[in-house]
Amino acid sequence: MHEASVFRPPHAAAGQLLSALPTPALLIELDAFEANLARMAELAERAGVALRPHAKAHKSVAIAQRQVDAGAVGICCQKLSEAYPFAAAGIGSIHLSNEFVGADKAAMAAELARHARLSICVDDVRQVSQVGAAAARAGVRIAVLPEVDVGQGRCGVANDDALLALVDAIDAEAALDFGGVQGYHGGIQHIEAWAQRREAAQRAAEATAGYLRALERRGLRCPVVTGGGTGTAEFDLESGVYTEIQPGSYLFLDGHYGSLEWEGALRPLHSLFVASTVMSAARAGVAVCDVGLKSVAVDSGLPHVWPRDADGALEYVAANDEHGVLSVTGADSRDLLGERLWLVPGHCDPTANLHDAYACVRGERVEAVWAIEARGLSR
Amino acid sequence: MHEASVFRPPHAAAGQLLSALPTPALLIELDAFEANLARMAELAERAGVALRPHAKAHKSVAIAQRQVDAGAVGICCQKLSEAYPFAAAGIGSIHLSNEFVGADKAAMAAELARHARLSICVDDVRQVSQVGAAAARAGVRIAVLPEVDVGQGRCGVANDDALLALVDAIDAEAALDFGGVQGYHGGIQHIEAWAQRREAAQRAAEATAGYLRALERRGLRCPVVTGGGTGTAEFDLESGVYTEIQPGSYLFLDGHYGSLEWEGALRPLHSLFVASTVMSAARAGVAVCDVGLKSVAVDSGLPHVWPRDADGALEYVAANDEHGVLSVTGADSRDLLGERLWLVPGHCDPTANLHDAYACVRGERVEAVWAIEARGLSR
Repeated sequence: MHEASVFRPPHAAAGQLLSALPTPALLIELDAFEANLARMAELAERAGVALRPHAKAHKSVAIAQRQVDAGAVGICCQKLSEAYPFAAAGIGSIHLSNEFVGADKAAMAAELARHARLSICVDDVRQVSQVGAAAARAGVRIAVLPEVDVGQGRCGVANDDALLALVDAIDAEAALDFGGVQGYHGGIQHIEAWAQRREAAQRAAEATAGYLRALERRGLRCPVVTGGGTGTAEFDLESGVYTEIQPGSYLFLDGHYGSLEWEGALRPLHSLFVASTVMSAARAGVAVCDVGLKSVAVDSGLPHVWPRDADGALEYVAANDEHGVLSVTGADSRDLLGERLWLVPGHCDPTANLHDAYACVRGERVEAVWAIEARGLSR
Repeated sequence: MHEASVFRPPHAAAGQLLSALPTPALLIELDAFEANLARMAELAERAGVALRPHAKAHKSVAIAQRQVDAGAVGICCQKLSEAYPFAAAGIGSIHLSNEFVGADKAAMAAELARHARLSICVDDVRQVSQVGAAAARAGVRIAVLPEVDVGQGRCGVANDDALLALVDAIDAEAALDFGGVQGYHGGIQHIEAWAQRREAAQRAAEATAGYLRALERRGLRCPVVTGGGTGTAEFDLESGVYTEIQPGSYLFLDGHYGSLEWEGALRPLHSLFVASTVMSAARAGVAVCDVGLKSVAVDSGLPHVWPRDADGALEYVAANDEHGVLSVTGADSRDLLGERLWLVPGHCDPTANLHDAYACVRGERVEAVWAIEARGLSR
């Protein structure tokens, strides 16, 4: 009886004034978002390289559809369950850019392959045989891309023999197709200096090319060579090695990516914000807002107030679970009670994963609300 | 048409073998959980102090009901929206242990007060008048507790005059009752050494008592003096100052709390785990599991493998979004592919906030699945 009777207000609705939106709220500023969306699509098209954006950054069907409408060949997902809402919504081509293991996960892949063209990554022959058996049982085909380690030292085989053993294992499975290779180096995405990032991207591309030569010596050509991220996208596009790139954060430009040097044609804009309210200002020099680490991810640094104060008068200095502590200089903190602040999250992917929807704003109004269907889907 | 046709397997079901549970999965080990639940209830009852556990730690109605069944007088919530599922499920007494501001939030409080006995915290007279107006309009009564700063330097008034001004403001609102005071020091919960934590708790209790004397000089007695957390619970119980304590993490004992010294009657056990699977082991000395920072919070340190290896043969050394990197010594990492590992999260509250349900296990089986209804409810 209680359940039905407690009125819980919706947090956002199209047409609503931004000033009436309860905080915390995850915002997309649409002008910046659309500029970022268009720019990456344009650069990829100009380079003749396929764009397959990473949906782990946004986890939202509405955004994936906009990416495909802008020319993307499909999307990447990082986990099988993450891919389900996209397959259910009709996104036709999904690449699982990560390894999985076990009969339960292989069965999930086979189920996904009934609904979308699915490609997956492997770095062990046991993964290949598990997914081969599940695909054969389900009567589906799955494209399989060995992942090669191009310097990250995390997943992926690290020598030609191991790569060729994977190709043989894929060949031995009737329901699997050799789909090419994935070479991804996450660490180099985050190098601050432009020139050093370029050099690191060139080394990773050269490492990928080395594996391709080993395959060519066996008479194998790769239908797809996939990799790259937001930080190295321009270098990956001009490398001549990748047929496809996988950037995700370019849509949002989080605080960390915003702190890097951008000297090329890609100049992403901050489009993702967490709206907050100062709810306590009882001490001189301190204001406390309602956005803590349950509303903004802090693994890549604390959020910063937007627009930035030239004089740093208001700085987010500590995140507790539901409190964000701000230092206040040159103002009476009591004047800030009830003030709304936009925060740029340090890391967009895990921040989106804390929320159920984006409130998409243009000017003073909420223009649309987009669900984050894949939030929490990490299996 | 697509929507209905993609089969998404449920992640957990009562009766299921633990070994069949897809990972990542958030586990409660019930024997340890029940021991923690009973122990705190027993200590509070013995001390004659009310126990009002903090639901921000678990966000689950099933757990709140067990806490009330074990003798708790009600629960604390940290945000208004967080309290809604508990009010809807019939938890009859809820304390909002945090400030809020704005007409929208005041209206949420008034709505909550229609369904539960509600108390709230304030540290500014403007908060009092907003909630007073909303309560009067809704025809409800709300108990209001000024928060006093006992050393945390975050929220709460820091002198007697400001406290008395709040009491006057509460008196001036026909729909509000003066409910007592809250004095909470989050920082001291985490002091490692037992003796130092005891001294810090005594100082915080003495600071609280100072505010109580100021109220007594005005002829005011506090119906409730609330505060304290897991780290200082035993000291708070014996302080003679608090009528009520607010611990949350005692149910779970996360990695951080587990690293503290526990020398008293309270010896909580690890009961919260994230089950993971090694899904890549392509390099010597490295294994990669499927639990990264989207499945386990890392703000208070990385998770650790459970049970701990005496020789540290397997150590979680880096968290990426969906990858946990483990260093492997004294074993062939390839033998670990497909291996299941239990991880103790560094911080329980934000870890629970990443998941939709607890798989509650006893021995080899899932005994129950408890929803995390308040996950993501930070408004």
